[in-house]
Amino acid sequence: MRLGSFRLLSVIALMLGCYSVSPLAASIKRVEPLNWWVGMQHPTVELMLYGDKLAELTPKLSYPGVSISAVHRTDNPNYLFVELTLSADAAAGTLPLQLWRGAKAVQQVDYPLLARNEGSAQRQGFSPADAIYLITPDRFVNGDPTNDSVPEMLEQANRQDDNGRHGGDLAGMQQALPYLQQLGVTAVWPTPLTENNQPAFSYHGYSATDFYRVDPRFGSNAQFRDFVAAANSLGIKVIQDIIVNHIGSNHWWLPDLPAKDWLNFPSGDGNGNFVPTNHNRSTIQDPYAADIDRELFTDGWFVDTMPDLNQRNPRLATYLIQNSIWWVEYAGLSGIREDTYSYADKAFLSEWGRRIMQEYPQFNIVGEEWSPNPLIVSYWQTGKQNKDGYVSHTPAMLDFPLYDALLKSLAEPESWNSGWIRLYEMLSNDHVYANPFNLVIFEGNHDTARLFSVLGEDQDLFRMALSYLFTMRGIPQLFYGTELALTSPPQRDDGKVRADFPGGWAGDKVNAFTGVGLTDTQRMAQQLVSRLLNWRKTASAIHQGKLLHFAPDRGTYTYFRYNEQQTVMVVLNKQPEAVTLDLARFRQVLPAKVQATEVLTGAKLQLQQQLTVPARGVLILDITP
Amino acid sequence: MRLGSFRLLSVIALMLGCYSVSPLAASIKRVEPLNWWVGMQHPTVELMLYGDKLAELTPKLSYPGVSISAVHRTDNPNYLFVELTLSADAAAGTLPLQLWRGAKAVQQVDYPLLARNEGSAQRQGFSPADAIYLITPDRFVNGDPTNDSVPEMLEQANRQDDNGRHGGDLAGMQQALPYLQQLGVTAVWPTPLTENNQPAFSYHGYSATDFYRVDPRFGSNAQFRDFVAAANSLGIKVIQDIIVNHIGSNHWWLPDLPAKDWLNFPSGDGNGNFVPTNHNRSTIQDPYAADIDRELFTDGWFVDTMPDLNQRNPRLATYLIQNSIWWVEYAGLSGIREDTYSYADKAFLSEWGRRIMQEYPQFNIVGEEWSPNPLIVSYWQTGKQNKDGYVSHTPAMLDFPLYDALLKSLAEPESWNSGWIRLYEMLSNDHVYANPFNLVIFEGNHDTARLFSVLGEDQDLFRMALSYLFTMRGIPQLFYGTELALTSPPQRDDGKVRADFPGGWAGDKVNAFTGVGLTDTQRMAQQLVSRLLNWRKTASAIHQGKLLHFAPDRGTYTYFRYNEQQTVMVVLNKQPEAVTLDLARFRQVLPAKVQATEVLTGAKLQLQQQLTVPARGVLILDITP
Repeated sequence: MRLGSFRLLSVIALMLGCYSVSPLAASIKRVEPLNWWVGMQHPTVELMLYGDKLAELTPKLSYPGVSISAVHRTDNPNYLFVELTLSADAAAGTLPLQLWRGAKAVQQVDYPLLARNEGSAQRQGFSPADAIYLITPDRFVNGDPTNDSVPEMLEQANRQDDNGRHGGDLAGMQQALPYLQQLGVTAVWPTPLTENNQPAFSYHGYSATDFYRVDPRFGSNAQFRDFVAAANSLGIKVIQDIIVNHIGSNHWWLPDLPAKDWLNFPSGDGNGNFVPTNHNRSTIQDPYAADIDRELFTDGWFVDTMPDLNQRNPRLATYLIQNSIWWVEYAGLSGIREDTYSYADKAFLSEWGRRIMQEYPQFNIVGEEWSPNPLIVSYWQTGKQNKDGYVSHTPAMLDFPLYDALLKSLAEPESWNSGWIRLYEMLSNDHVYANPFNLVIFEGNHDTARLFSVLGEDQDLFRMALSYLFTMRGIPQLFYGTELALTSPPQRDDGKVRADFPGGWAGDKVNAFTGVGLTDTQRMAQQLVSRLLNWRKTASAIHQGKLLHFAPDRGTYTYFRYNEQQTVMVVLNKQPEAVTLDLARFRQVLPAKVQATEVLTGAKLQLQQQLTVPARGVLILDITP
Repeated sequence: MRLGSFRLLSVIALMLGCYSVSPLAASIKRVEPLNWWVGMQHPTVELMLYGDKLAELTPKLSYPGVSISAVHRTDNPNYLFVELTLSADAAAGTLPLQLWRGAKAVQQVDYPLLARNEGSAQRQGFSPADAIYLITPDRFVNGDPTNDSVPEMLEQANRQDDNGRHGGDLAGMQQALPYLQQLGVTAVWPTPLTENNQPAFSYHGYSATDFYRVDPRFGSNAQFRDFVAAANSLGIKVIQDIIVNHIGSNHWWLPDLPAKDWLNFPSGDGNGNFVPTNHNRSTIQDPYAADIDRELFTDGWFVDTMPDLNQRNPRLATYLIQNSIWWVEYAGLSGIREDTYSYADKAFLSEWGRRIMQEYPQFNIVGEEWSPNPLIVSYWQTGKQNKDGYVSHTPAMLDFPLYDALLKSLAEPESWNSGWIRLYEMLSNDHVYANPFNLVIFEGNHDTARLFSVLGEDQDLFRMALSYLFTMRGIPQLFYGTELALTSPPQRDDGKVRADFPGGWAGDKVNAFTGVGLTDTQRMAQQLVSRLLNWRKTASAIHQGKLLHFAPDRGTYTYFRYNEQQTVMVVLNKQPEAVTLDLARFRQVLPAKVQATEVLTGAKLQLQQQLTVPARGVLILDITP
């Protein structure tokens, strides 16, 4: 244990509603979840108690409507798992959970049972009406330079190091909220904020060392909760990035694992070498895959600093499910983004999603399955009728297949089998998804090269990509800085892709918030995003409308979004010359004579026989009778 | 009409069991089908009668157990459609079908109702126990030089012209049967043999000008029937290539179409230009496709010399269904290969397949859907649960996705996302098929470049490709001449791909039948195919066994076919060095110690801890306890 119980007690005493351990004894080092709530759908909560030889003790509780329904012990005597069952009429209060040795109470945990916020269960998750802004918090805005380095943490700030910590934090994200609101963003997805007390690469957040604590270099749990409330008050939802597949190698569990089977390959290959995943995600559905390959996919480690969790252990499964629900309830989340989705145990994933959606039926969860194959991605979405009978409860998935097709379609020359036809044909696969309109579509993320660079810094293609993203079916997700056409090496380079956001640090010569120092290209990009996203906020045909698209024609691609209130016509032209379209082709959805407003320019035009699309141009025509 | 009725009568008089028109009148030019059978499952047959103003007449019939159940007329007065209903106890015989004008019989058709061959309905279609040999008949063996040119046909033989007729025929195919049997072939699929009286490109057979007649340059209907019988007697099934999507522009219908809606776009675009298909097969399942694109896909013409049939016309639909059944019953077929499958009307295709399979429940039909996307190909296979509710009755499809993956996997260098992983991942999609074991897998066909050339004339890769093809799940199909490693330009060049088979013409200096003049490479290829196919005939694990494959490892790809009787282990090694495999990895299917026979060499070996695969080598290990 890195943390003395004194510090732990001091910290938790400051956290409203978190448990405290009575001075009867000091051997309880952890109680998790930090608290629970009355009025949840699921009637039980299982506490993990950690401390020297706690398994020798017997828990007892006397509290109206709450009883100990099960006690679990593992092969590690320092852990005790106490399952509480809460009746529907249990009141909020402090549970006096006692631990007895023989006939004597030797410890007491005062465990908080809180009341839920009004409407908590019915919260609305992110939806196709939203536009998501993905943030790497360490690289966005440094709102509080005093927490850039924290003595108790292994890695200190070093802004000169692409792979080091740069100081961005929750305070900075909170300062940026008005900017994001103006930009038209309605949801933010910060990469993980939980403690990552790793000696290197700790900035990225995907190596949790404490599942119940915001990293102090980002701020505190309370600060995160305040940030969510502030965002919500500006109409911005918050999505938390959660990882159930693995932890950081400095997680507090590591020196004293809760059970021998808590990790997969806990001893590596037996020769001290970690066993990497084979990344063969196809094994999940492959009717011919060998067991050994399928097991290596989910049980192998991502990298040697990320021990792989064995969610088949029921204590760990419950722990992870409760942790996710805890953050939703505690922080007031509107969504979860689940990292390295398919690498976790799939039976666990089903139950994890079921439990979350049981508590929050209108919630949304988006999983990351990095595959260009819709057959693979669609497997994981709620409602999919899978051949093997697998049932998922995850409503959304990141649409990697469409991302892949979008980049290829823009990069390639037009021909019968390249260019727009890639996008056109990829969308035709949508019948394989239970709900393609709830996929999260994106132009890049923290793991890809920057869009503008991938497109060879071609402004026309860039405009097409974003116009597509903001009008296509699904929930669009923008990576921070795309609104400034930030660049990166064209091949993946994480440290450079996750560059500091201009204006996020005092003294920045370029400042996206004030506009100072922006190039013309950057200003163009910012205006494009702002114009499109703010228009999109009001465009019901984009939020809920149907989609009708037409086969690519002479380098152009035309599609419509439409409902009873609104029709939006989008034409993308990759050709270096203007192309004139015969509007009769679109009669299925386009009336013979209508007036339209060009969204990017505000120009009005009459649509009758023909429509000319400028060379390498975009037309987004809003046809609202 | 090109043919005078005199010639027609003479020809049909020679054809056993075909109708004759009584001398009452001579205005009946065609009656199709040429005959029908008693004892079919489906109780009706609809005759198409063609002749001057036949629609003015009224058909009458007196025959025990057979009655006229419907009479249909179209907007063309020269066609009369007479539906006969046959009771279960109707006897074979000659139907005296009379046509009356008012109170007077003016014509009589003596229509043959034949008895079926014993076991006709229960015939066994081609299956995974078979290996199919695809032949372009004009380019295979010229068994009868006297029919190379036929005066009544527009195109005469010219062997100097890549795109002309070369003289191959049914007599040649029949002569080659012993060779094919020795090679290990158990099914042949000749490209279409029906009359193609087109002025050019008539050799390929895909422009039918008479649905009921074998092209006289190939032989006669009877000769085809005899060929099938001869093949069957050597254990070789025959698959007929059928096209319901289009006809040749010289089809006898063209000058006097049976109905205004017999063809799609009968007048082209209105300006005399034919309207081509857009080839956008994705529109069939695309939930967002525009009607205009979907219609253009099925209704547009393949090329200007191939008028597109409108199978939504119920007379035409019935005509085509009956024609397919007629050939099965008449010639004794074991299967149908359906050309340009998805380009036909899909409701029609469903009924077409249903009707054929109703008559022959153990039959097999393979459709051609040229797409690398399993989602598209799988849509058409019997048993697939399609999202739109579409029901197919076609048991097999050509596996274009696996063909595409096979070539890429062999051509590409090995890496995490190229090489064998293509094949490995493509197979993982098999859950999308209702029955992947009934797909027809292939190494090339008459529309692709030659395998040996595609592989850069690399003998090792060639051996890997064929070893894969003959051991993988599905029904393997070889293109004629692949057993000689014939070459072609690496890009598609139909005339050169369909080159004359060495030894098929008198005076050929190279002769595959005798072995004279074959190069070492050709001899190696021929021996490889013969050895593998003859072994395959007896390999029940290949015919009916399960498949288990292992993720590619250091440039090798290992899979097993197995059932209770036999286990076959296949290892393909693309690396330029030998690779040693730890056999413990394969324990799920491979016992700890077994003896195996190497199929290609006959060598015996003990499998214990390790197995070394030669550089760029193949091991096919037959483990039969």
